[in-house]
Amino acid sequence: MNTETHKAYGASSNTAALEPMHIERRATGAEDVKIDILYCGICHSDIHQVRNDWKNSKYPVVPGHEIIGRVVATGANVTKFKEGDLVGVGCMVDSCQDCPSCHNHLEQFCENGTIYTYNSPDKHLGGYTYGGYSTGVTVQQDFVLKVPENIDAKGAAPLLCAGITTWSPLSHWKVKKGDKVGIIGLGGLGHMGVKFANALGAHVVMITTSPAKAEDAKTLGAHEVLISKDAEAMKAHANSFDFILNTVPVGHDVNPYLSLLKIDATMVMVGAVEPLEAVNGAGLIRGRKRIAGSLIGGIKETQEMLDFCGEHNITADVEMVNMQDVNNAFERVIKADVKYRFVIDMESLKN
Amino acid sequence: MNTETHKAYGASSNTAALEPMHIERRATGAEDVKIDILYCGICHSDIHQVRNDWKNSKYPVVPGHEIIGRVVATGANVTKFKEGDLVGVGCMVDSCQDCPSCHNHLEQFCENGTIYTYNSPDKHLGGYTYGGYSTGVTVQQDFVLKVPENIDAKGAAPLLCAGITTWSPLSHWKVKKGDKVGIIGLGGLGHMGVKFANALGAHVVMITTSPAKAEDAKTLGAHEVLISKDAEAMKAHANSFDFILNTVPVGHDVNPYLSLLKIDATMVMVGAVEPLEAVNGAGLIRGRKRIAGSLIGGIKETQEMLDFCGEHNITADVEMVNMQDVNNAFERVIKADVKYRFVIDMESLKN
Repeated sequence: MNTETHKAYGASSNTAALEPMHIERRATGAEDVKIDILYCGICHSDIHQVRNDWKNSKYPVVPGHEIIGRVVATGANVTKFKEGDLVGVGCMVDSCQDCPSCHNHLEQFCENGTIYTYNSPDKHLGGYTYGGYSTGVTVQQDFVLKVPENIDAKGAAPLLCAGITTWSPLSHWKVKKGDKVGIIGLGGLGHMGVKFANALGAHVVMITTSPAKAEDAKTLGAHEVLISKDAEAMKAHANSFDFILNTVPVGHDVNPYLSLLKIDATMVMVGAVEPLEAVNGAGLIRGRKRIAGSLIGGIKETQEMLDFCGEHNITADVEMVNMQDVNNAFERVIKADVKYRFVIDMESLKN
Repeated sequence: MNTETHKAYGASSNTAALEPMHIERRATGAEDVKIDILYCGICHSDIHQVRNDWKNSKYPVVPGHEIIGRVVATGANVTKFKEGDLVGVGCMVDSCQDCPSCHNHLEQFCENGTIYTYNSPDKHLGGYTYGGYSTGVTVQQDFVLKVPENIDAKGAAPLLCAGITTWSPLSHWKVKKGDKVGIIGLGGLGHMGVKFANALGAHVVMITTSPAKAEDAKTLGAHEVLISKDAEAMKAHANSFDFILNTVPVGHDVNPYLSLLKIDATMVMVGAVEPLEAVNGAGLIRGRKRIAGSLIGGIKETQEMLDFCGEHNITADVEMVNMQDVNNAFERVIKADVKYRFVIDMESLKN
């Protein structure tokens, strides 16, 4: 098969820093969209996979699944895109498209195995897929998203993962005008949750351990800030939330948050893949409360989110970084020292 | 206020055995139904409260909230019942009837405090309410249930707690014909869950650690038995359940059960008020799965359950016991040595 060579940054082992490398991409097939990458967001899961924290990394790992670019070529059967279109690619680049999950627009739960943007088996070239820390990528048209031209393309990059991860539960659980919605944690995910919940008309409460984040949360769209360490404040908000989005990225004690939910209300976990501390059964039973999980979102839902962002002029708050500074950026992500997402300017890799 | 004296069995401290005592009940008020108690089921929570396991017991504790009896008198404003009616009283005898929960037929979540059948403040006589281990009880008409005359009255007693506790989640989560439903744990609750799920037309899978329970589970209505310690069998059932009812009465590891749920499916906890072992966040996230709790059920729902039992001739499997043997019965309940619920024959107390 013909291939094309691209510049990229990747890690060759779980202890290696990211370094420049050249990778091969497939030539543009009949169903494919060839994309010149403009920007790529840095997601915390990039770091987890580079460092093999989830024990499934295949080296070299070229991370990146918050990709914004321009279409530079299209295959013969591509009807949805044309050269010059501003497009996005998120966490997935393929799925079987023929199982109940795929038919139900839940490609992230493909029964035959979602093909993630990086570190998944590459059925075209063999080996494993390479992500967006790269000058270009070629993607099956059904996994390419249209990005509204009116929004800032740099700030749009994190919509492809942080955005859809928070949009999907808010949309699926039908958060609506007047609902009291809590967003736990103010990071890359949480700051998008605040923006979306606000734009959906909810009364948004930022729930955080850190009083220092109150002002920023309000600037982003929170109507109130609840400091979770303040027992009196937590008590005052008991049994009052219609929905809570929990973006805390590590295992933690969720019981205090369960006490905030109304009867029949749900807290959705989108960050913590680790074990949660002991969930108090009584906290669920008294009030018929629910804990659920949610993973990114399907392609159809991702397009709906991007369209919503176009209508409401929503993007992530980002700090731009050059490709050569990515290792330093990783360290800052680990320290939560970014408001609220790094985005790599791929121009820095091309020169 | 006029009172009437009844024979009862109660505990005078957290270390005392149940022993005979006399208790006062209020005279029949305008809204009240006076009931001659025929039978009362023994619920595990009776034992918890007698022994102050939940640290909120008020002595003397006269337990019992699975009450079946006959109406012997009615107050001037009572329209729903007449002398001779076969009736039931469950876990609740009053609520504010004026909060959103009560208006929504969820008296078990009354915002001003559900009045439980025993060990709750008694607004009529002061002190605390006394339960059904007694010759009679007087209850506000809205908290009295009609019991179909065609079902066995002894086996009907456990419907008032074990029955509604399992019926409510099956009904609320709309279990229907053809659904694959798992019932975890084959005790007082679980055996009712199997009967109800079967009668609702579901494909019922008994999930148990104990192969010895397989035959009984099938007799009760399970179509399949899944031994949760059998890793191969668990794997074969992965991601296949529409709904799981978890009746395990103690904290435990729920992660293996989460793996059984389909995408978007729910496991409802009705037994474990204790902390669950660490819930794996990824187990919820991968498949947008849910854990919820459920507490008994509202009065309207309880009547619906009793009517359903009348139509489908459903009662609990019970072992009858005399009041004088209650302490021995408690010990057997603790050892799970009963199929599947003890019911006290109150005739033994009257003589």
